[in-house]
Amino acid sequence: MAEKNVKKNGTYVLGVDLGGTKILAAVVSKDGKVISRAKKKTKADSDAQAIMQRMVDCCEEAMEKAKLTAKSILAIGVGSPGPLDPIEGKVLDTPNLNLKNAPIAKFISEKLKIKTFIDNDVNIGTLGEFTYGAGKGKKDIIGIFLGTGVGGGVIINGKLHHGYSLNAGELGHMKLVANGELCGCGQRGCLEAYASKTAMIRKIKEAIAEGKKSILPELIGDNWSKLTSKVFKKCVEEKDPLVVPILEEAAIYTGIGIGSLLNILSPELVVIGGGLCEALPDFFMPIIRNHAEKNSFPIMYKGIKIVPAALGDDAGILGAAALAWQRIK
Amino acid sequence: MAEKNVKKNGTYVLGVDLGGTKILAAVVSKDGKVISRAKKKTKADSDAQAIMQRMVDCCEEAMEKAKLTAKSILAIGVGSPGPLDPIEGKVLDTPNLNLKNAPIAKFISEKLKIKTFIDNDVNIGTLGEFTYGAGKGKKDIIGIFLGTGVGGGVIINGKLHHGYSLNAGELGHMKLVANGELCGCGQRGCLEAYASKTAMIRKIKEAIAEGKKSILPELIGDNWSKLTSKVFKKCVEEKDPLVVPILEEAAIYTGIGIGSLLNILSPELVVIGGGLCEALPDFFMPIIRNHAEKNSFPIMYKGIKIVPAALGDDAGILGAAALAWQRIK
Repeated sequence: MAEKNVKKNGTYVLGVDLGGTKILAAVVSKDGKVISRAKKKTKADSDAQAIMQRMVDCCEEAMEKAKLTAKSILAIGVGSPGPLDPIEGKVLDTPNLNLKNAPIAKFISEKLKIKTFIDNDVNIGTLGEFTYGAGKGKKDIIGIFLGTGVGGGVIINGKLHHGYSLNAGELGHMKLVANGELCGCGQRGCLEAYASKTAMIRKIKEAIAEGKKSILPELIGDNWSKLTSKVFKKCVEEKDPLVVPILEEAAIYTGIGIGSLLNILSPELVVIGGGLCEALPDFFMPIIRNHAEKNSFPIMYKGIKIVPAALGDDAGILGAAALAWQRIK
Repeated sequence: MAEKNVKKNGTYVLGVDLGGTKILAAVVSKDGKVISRAKKKTKADSDAQAIMQRMVDCCEEAMEKAKLTAKSILAIGVGSPGPLDPIEGKVLDTPNLNLKNAPIAKFISEKLKIKTFIDNDVNIGTLGEFTYGAGKGKKDIIGIFLGTGVGGGVIINGKLHHGYSLNAGELGHMKLVANGELCGCGQRGCLEAYASKTAMIRKIKEAIAEGKKSILPELIGDNWSKLTSKVFKKCVEEKDPLVVPILEEAAIYTGIGIGSLLNILSPELVVIGGGLCEALPDFFMPIIRNHAEKNSFPIMYKGIKIVPAALGDDAGILGAAALAWQRIK
């Protein structure tokens, strides 16, 4: 069937996932089937032109693998770290990549002669779940991604909400504790200051310094980059007395934040992504749901779902493909 | 000019403001001009039929005063305390009125043969400011109303956002202090537990019990119903050492909550209503703006406005009229 569709114009889109270490591109059908994939290194310290050219190369490789020319591709969607301007298709600035005012959409569309749209990676993650994953068939959903930071996306009436600044959805920076813990953003008491991996590591280090017992030093020594989701999972399985309460606290604050969001926006579904939650859904989800329920009105909680993300490693390319399908309409 | 338009069908709408003590109705033109007004007592303890009939009577009186028949009225908008179902046009329940599952829209439209739409009073207040007041010409705005409780409305892309429960916008019940002060809703740390008049009175009583000095006992004695916005204004003018810090704290939490909302939704304008803020804008607004700025990202705060409500006592009827114009389209 793929063979048969190959030459039909506009049957496919390209979804591109620009990350700090790698660029992924995939040819994707309307129903979310990945036809082909390509992967390149980002080389984050190279200049914007070079990074954008590697995105183009990655797209071309994916098309070649699918035996397609640009004519068969209706549009390209790109997920990139933000902040960015999704209308102009520009990345404004981004901490880990050399992309100040980089006109990604224009660059790619001129090189490949395919209309290109961009949005930030967490919006893309939310749109992917909305279109092909855990949020399929819903109208209003919220995505929360627990990682190094805490990101979010808000879909209202089937569309990503960008707001006046075009950068709405900074759900990691809603305030849960006025004058609380210092957050990476410089403000205090943000959800991110309680539920990000950064916050957890800070608390773990403090607890170890206080002499609390844990299997963690055995598992990772002094090398904090070894503290992967797998290691967290091991700690939960072993009921580690230092790590487990810190993970619980992150889940509690995530639940409180979601309760607040339910009262404000009343979505039908909240999808939680990020490696840690996806590795330990049975640990995180019941705590998150419990505290979301406790911190929202019964009318807002009734009938809704709070679920882990479903797309895993394909979230980026599928979300970007979903953006292409939605924006090209 | 009014005379000339009187017989033209569908030139006007009726806006109805259902409150705990009075029902207001007004004939309103498309550009928000009030052509006539009527007023009746709600008699909140009477049954739903009787209350709804008085709403109909009030509409008829307003039409008579404008020398109009039902044929000249395109639609009726009603603002009512919630929670309610704005699609079915039913009030589900409301603490101060005998209106359990009251089919207000159906009742009025059958009696008057005019299409009738309802929404909750704070949504109506927000829509009124959006259409005719401080938020005119904007696309995404948020309304926050500081009163006995704290209510809110969210307008996205020019439309009130209702969400899955149809009751989104409970901005008074976003959490600002996890496990903080007990709120009237039974949960803890909500904005309402810090910024409502109820919260302020609780704190004032505590401070008086602790023996703190204030001119308040002189002004109102033991009669707390005398604690009007005017009395608060007097306290601010006299720099009352007990009352002023409590008002300041309410303004600070309101600012923190707005900062959080800016990060989540990135509206272009936030309008603050309620008697107290409208009586003391020069006191409240600078504190609110300052803390909203401190608690939001620069990109979310840049170019936006945080302003006091502009419609005053007409907010209810004008907002209800705006609802009629918007929903009849």
